[in-house]
Amino acid sequence: MTGVATRIPMARATRLAIIGFGNVGKALARLLLSKRDELNARGVQFVVTGIFTARHGHVIARRGLNLEEALAVDNLWELKPRRPAIGGLEFIRTCPADIAVEVSTLNPFNGEPALGYITEALSRSISVVTANKGPIAFAYPRLMALAREHSAHILFESTVMDGCPIFSLVRETLPCTRILGFRAILNSTSNLIIQKVEEGSSLKQAIAYSQEIGIAETNPSYDLDGYDAQIKTSILVQVIMGECLPPSKVARNGMGHLTEKVIRKAVQQGKHYHLIATAFRNGKDIEASVDVQLLSKDDRLAFVTGTSNGIFIETDTLRSIFLSEENPGPAQTAYGVLADCVHVAEALRKPARKRIS
Amino acid sequence: MTGVATRIPMARATRLAIIGFGNVGKALARLLLSKRDELNARGVQFVVTGIFTARHGHVIARRGLNLEEALAVDNLWELKPRRPAIGGLEFIRTCPADIAVEVSTLNPFNGEPALGYITEALSRSISVVTANKGPIAFAYPRLMALAREHSAHILFESTVMDGCPIFSLVRETLPCTRILGFRAILNSTSNLIIQKVEEGSSLKQAIAYSQEIGIAETNPSYDLDGYDAQIKTSILVQVIMGECLPPSKVARNGMGHLTEKVIRKAVQQGKHYHLIATAFRNGKDIEASVDVQLLSKDDRLAFVTGTSNGIFIETDTLRSIFLSEENPGPAQTAYGVLADCVHVAEALRKPARKRIS
Repeated sequence: MTGVATRIPMARATRLAIIGFGNVGKALARLLLSKRDELNARGVQFVVTGIFTARHGHVIARRGLNLEEALAVDNLWELKPRRPAIGGLEFIRTCPADIAVEVSTLNPFNGEPALGYITEALSRSISVVTANKGPIAFAYPRLMALAREHSAHILFESTVMDGCPIFSLVRETLPCTRILGFRAILNSTSNLIIQKVEEGSSLKQAIAYSQEIGIAETNPSYDLDGYDAQIKTSILVQVIMGECLPPSKVARNGMGHLTEKVIRKAVQQGKHYHLIATAFRNGKDIEASVDVQLLSKDDRLAFVTGTSNGIFIETDTLRSIFLSEENPGPAQTAYGVLADCVHVAEALRKPARKRIS
Repeated sequence: MTGVATRIPMARATRLAIIGFGNVGKALARLLLSKRDELNARGVQFVVTGIFTARHGHVIARRGLNLEEALAVDNLWELKPRRPAIGGLEFIRTCPADIAVEVSTLNPFNGEPALGYITEALSRSISVVTANKGPIAFAYPRLMALAREHSAHILFESTVMDGCPIFSLVRETLPCTRILGFRAILNSTSNLIIQKVEEGSSLKQAIAYSQEIGIAETNPSYDLDGYDAQIKTSILVQVIMGECLPPSKVARNGMGHLTEKVIRKAVQQGKHYHLIATAFRNGKDIEASVDVQLLSKDDRLAFVTGTSNGIFIETDTLRSIFLSEENPGPAQTAYGVLADCVHVAEALRKPARKRIS
């Protein structure tokens, strides 16, 4: 198969500009190729009109580029015609697109440069799908307002549970439901590191392992001290509970005080440490925290191991529901991005009665 | 509050004809009252134009009836003006409705009389929401074809997991995903009975208890011998896996051979019996079964206790996801019905661009 097959009539197609072409961006490109028939069957056609990377060049092709070729090269500047280097903002201004897919490398503490990219795209009425937590945690109300002002959409399924449909579950399947609170394991790195120590690794080895398999941040503190879970908790409170709560208002107690000895002693007593994120309503307030907790085997969250995640959602309609995803990786994060792109494409296209059955 | 508040401009309203007014029907009426503001906020207005029961009369009010009054009487014939008795089919032909909400008492083995009601409604271009398993298990392809032919919809969230959003999860949140199989606890009665026996009840007492709290069928065999789980498994295979598989093709081994002694001996070994429903693809075939299985505490399904349910879904995009609902009752089944009604109302109304963010 050559790239010709990726070129479809532009009039019906939704144009994607992909920002970032690391593990997730490449996994998305592979999904766009492998799921083409299923997408067609839904009446959704995507063409990728450009890919931008900060360090490996970029490519823009107004009529759709060849994803096989883009996946085959080490650096995008190898693709003809060779293009002069540009910045991310200039890429967004230049690349014709209906959706900017923002999967760049993140600075989790302030959301940049992703936040700037997203703001630029929405201001140009380009919808946004992002896997980056920072922009949503720090600027959710502003980004939502900007999207509405410019008749664009912004979705971010993969920011919190690696593609597991937590936001679309609440948005699409629980109409008229009030989320009362949640209790969850959201940070896979700390979870995996504790498990590795339980199995005999030193903390140092466990951290090195999780960096090796590409799930830990370069700065381990971000995962282990609970910053990642804190940001995710803030996003969940803002989006599914509809309450304003910046990350700094989520109480945070990381696993800094846990030693190998403490972790292994707990196992002898049939218990396991986990970094638990919780939020619940207390009158008009939200109480939210990230804490290392000692769970007994009676707690279903104790079964969330490896890179898995899991969440109990308390509702006013269905009581408690539990959603969990087993050992997600970049392909699952990319699927969450793809699912968001499908939702946006369907929301953007000409209104038609929807078939639900 | 009087009934006046339930009367809203008919032009914008979606008219519901409710068939069956037992625990679920009444819980639905309460939800329609308590969730009125949230429904309004979504732009959805329901008016109930009629309620039919087989043994307690019926009521029809073209401009919407007073739900508080209907909930307050023992028999619907007490409501003025008193009406002569009619059958369910005549009710459907007489009551003006956009959605027939079918929550009548079921005959699980052939789906009647619900199947007749649903067929009548769809043939009249009235959409259907049902909590009855039988019609879906035994006539899914025919009912779907009938719905399409008459530009109507049919949804049935509450048939398999008591309102937990399993069908809408797959339909609305997992685009372009192929379901490879599942493993689940779907029959709460058998699960609760085993648990009660583990806790010291005799089998007879446990069965009596589950009948008392209203979850067991009059004929215990339906739950204990796996017929209920067999029918639910057939529905899941047909709907989320898209494969034709009548209930009779689901291998069934109930808990008939389990004695109190066997159940309690397992507990001493840290294990628990559960009725497990499974289906997976084997080449072009589906292998599906309902079996009593001995689970160790390492198996997350072993944590599904009480009237809870739980399902592992294997997918080609997100690997395995787990969804579970804790101790649902009639209010949760009714919520699944309400959620379906919202989905149908939104699908029926004038096409408009959808806001998803």
